[in-house]
Amino acid sequence: MALIVKKFGGTSVGNPERIRNVAARIQRTREAGHHVVAVVSAMSGVTDGLIKLAREVNSNPNEREMDVLLATGEQTTIALTAMALQALGQKAVSLTGAQAGIVTDGVHTKAKIANITPKRVHELLAAGHVVIVAGFQGANSEGAITTLGRGGSDLTAIALAAALKADLCEIYTDVDGVYTADPRIVKGARKLDEISYDEMLELASLGAKVMQSRSVEFAKKFKVPFSVRSSMNDNPGTLVKEETRKMEDVVIRGISVDKNQAKINIPKVPDRPGIAARLFKALAAVHLNVDMIVQNASTEGFTDISFTVGKDDLAKARHVIEPIAKEMGAGAVADYQKIAKLSLVGIGMRSHSGVAADLFEALAENQVNIQMISTSEIKISVIIDAADADRAMNAAHAKFGLGIS
Amino acid sequence: MALIVKKFGGTSVGNPERIRNVAARIQRTREAGHHVVAVVSAMSGVTDGLIKLAREVNSNPNEREMDVLLATGEQTTIALTAMALQALGQKAVSLTGAQAGIVTDGVHTKAKIANITPKRVHELLAAGHVVIVAGFQGANSEGAITTLGRGGSDLTAIALAAALKADLCEIYTDVDGVYTADPRIVKGARKLDEISYDEMLELASLGAKVMQSRSVEFAKKFKVPFSVRSSMNDNPGTLVKEETRKMEDVVIRGISVDKNQAKINIPKVPDRPGIAARLFKALAAVHLNVDMIVQNASTEGFTDISFTVGKDDLAKARHVIEPIAKEMGAGAVADYQKIAKLSLVGIGMRSHSGVAADLFEALAENQVNIQMISTSEIKISVIIDAADADRAMNAAHAKFGLGIS
Repeated sequence: MALIVKKFGGTSVGNPERIRNVAARIQRTREAGHHVVAVVSAMSGVTDGLIKLAREVNSNPNEREMDVLLATGEQTTIALTAMALQALGQKAVSLTGAQAGIVTDGVHTKAKIANITPKRVHELLAAGHVVIVAGFQGANSEGAITTLGRGGSDLTAIALAAALKADLCEIYTDVDGVYTADPRIVKGARKLDEISYDEMLELASLGAKVMQSRSVEFAKKFKVPFSVRSSMNDNPGTLVKEETRKMEDVVIRGISVDKNQAKINIPKVPDRPGIAARLFKALAAVHLNVDMIVQNASTEGFTDISFTVGKDDLAKARHVIEPIAKEMGAGAVADYQKIAKLSLVGIGMRSHSGVAADLFEALAENQVNIQMISTSEIKISVIIDAADADRAMNAAHAKFGLGIS
Repeated sequence: MALIVKKFGGTSVGNPERIRNVAARIQRTREAGHHVVAVVSAMSGVTDGLIKLAREVNSNPNEREMDVLLATGEQTTIALTAMALQALGQKAVSLTGAQAGIVTDGVHTKAKIANITPKRVHELLAAGHVVIVAGFQGANSEGAITTLGRGGSDLTAIALAAALKADLCEIYTDVDGVYTADPRIVKGARKLDEISYDEMLELASLGAKVMQSRSVEFAKKFKVPFSVRSSMNDNPGTLVKEETRKMEDVVIRGISVDKNQAKINIPKVPDRPGIAARLFKALAAVHLNVDMIVQNASTEGFTDISFTVGKDDLAKARHVIEPIAKEMGAGAVADYQKIAKLSLVGIGMRSHSGVAADLFEALAENQVNIQMISTSEIKISVIIDAADADRAMNAAHAKFGLGIS
């Protein structure tokens, strides 16, 4: 008898019929003799509706009250899911985040899980119940409702799995698992049976939409194995787990493309110590996430600095950077939005050389120009023209033999 | 500086515009220098929508989960109301029933308030906040969400007013206050400035739709004065309070008519000790509320027993009564649904005689036949034909000079 935590996102519980399907799936696991804790999100559309209501009473709603409001979305789903299980004759009890013992730090709308005391969950499981827990929410030490921000329900599931010492955590979503590349773009893309936390982290932070990186980080930290699988079928999905020796034989696990970045270029920056620090400290001060940074070798005392930020942050970044560039006597700040970041990820890169060279060769053979390059231990990223992205992805996928063989 | 508890029902907070109006009204009181605790219901229509959702996943939803589900309705309103106050520059914080310290006994969907520990409310008031509390809900000693059943938000307001030792509790509704009779039926009906708890109780239990009697009972027990007034205007409403000497000068405070009763008649019941007990214990065992009971004097060892129940309970009552009537050899059980109960209420009746005679005379003069009569210390009720109800109400209203003079 295993303890399995299952997480169902907003699409999976999007209407009463789907909630009944989720209940049936949970019951099958229960009937196979396992204990089940199910973490559910708000029904799709509900959260947006609540945000709209809030805007109608206050154009800039308070974050504490936003949390009180949004938490009703998951609370609705837990009750309905418990009822649906009961309709199948299965004992089930719903718990809000607070009732499940999820204590967060005090930051509203993007709280962090401080600790979980799942005493009530254990008691209910021992009494034969399926326990349905509201994702995305907890309560701070004062008892106020807090929400965990984007990807919060995944985090709830993985944190609960860690606290309960669950045997497995299953993240149900609308895709079959993690692929070698986006199957809508690369025809031969292959679903991965397994992937290491680090590889999953890189893919998550690189724009693969499956999961937020914070949930993967949490799973890695607490060694929680989890699978990503579809709520629409019984395919096994992709298991995300600690790295094994065998995994290193695979040089490249997958390829991702992020089209949501913009590049900023500051030309003719006087090459003095402290210049880069000055720029990027100013960006950090306004909580701007800078991704790739490239500084070219100095020519005649001047250098070019380029970096990328999310497209949404572009205006804000320019606003911070321009007065500083002017003050230091640099050239005019320019930005480029029609770019894409293509990344190769694989822990096998650590022990295999020539990966970068192979990638550059594949791109060259396909007339793809490289604008920026950045590498880490298990990743190579290049910035290319957005129009080249799909061609480049297919070329790299073929070059490294990632497709179905 | 007074502490005022204000309660706004579902219609008063039925959409974002109305919530903004409620916020403006609260702020006016706050700006006049008073502390305000506002108790709000679910936006009108929301609760029905949730019940419909529940039925789509389970035809007979579990009561514990129903409470979890329905509690989201008020939780949505508290957040929106707090946001609307903040938009006006007014400090405000929302609290769920549990967060406000409302502890109930464990009966789901119709919990009773066991006690209130409003420590958090006091702290927030002291810090200058308007505190918005979710009506209709609390948590039991295990921390599970419970709801208080029909009229639960009124009860929350009055119980909070008692626990906080508030100076006044205002129940905002869609009527201007308590009238001498239903103004839609009696043209000269007059709004009462004040009324005693006992009179209000009788009117509430007699079908005047303003408030549930349990809230009035609670107010009486804890001596909480409260006013019933409209959220649509600034009229002063009706103050409900402890009886004063002056109130006794008024013989009849008001008249109500309840058309929601049905009469059951059991003819030719053998007149033996214990027969009535047998019948009404059986009805009590299925939680059926019996209102008026009349047993005629015995003729030749047989008697007739008649009683009234709510129309919704008629089928259930017949189902209980018929086998017993058969067993005791009584005649065929009959029911009459086209009846109305007209009641006169006034604490002055205690010290004034002839009230019943005057009522019967007024009815006789208007050709209204009386089917059953029941009296208490401050009330006379008669069962009449439903078709006579409006005429009888107007006749009694005129007879006792209740109209605008």
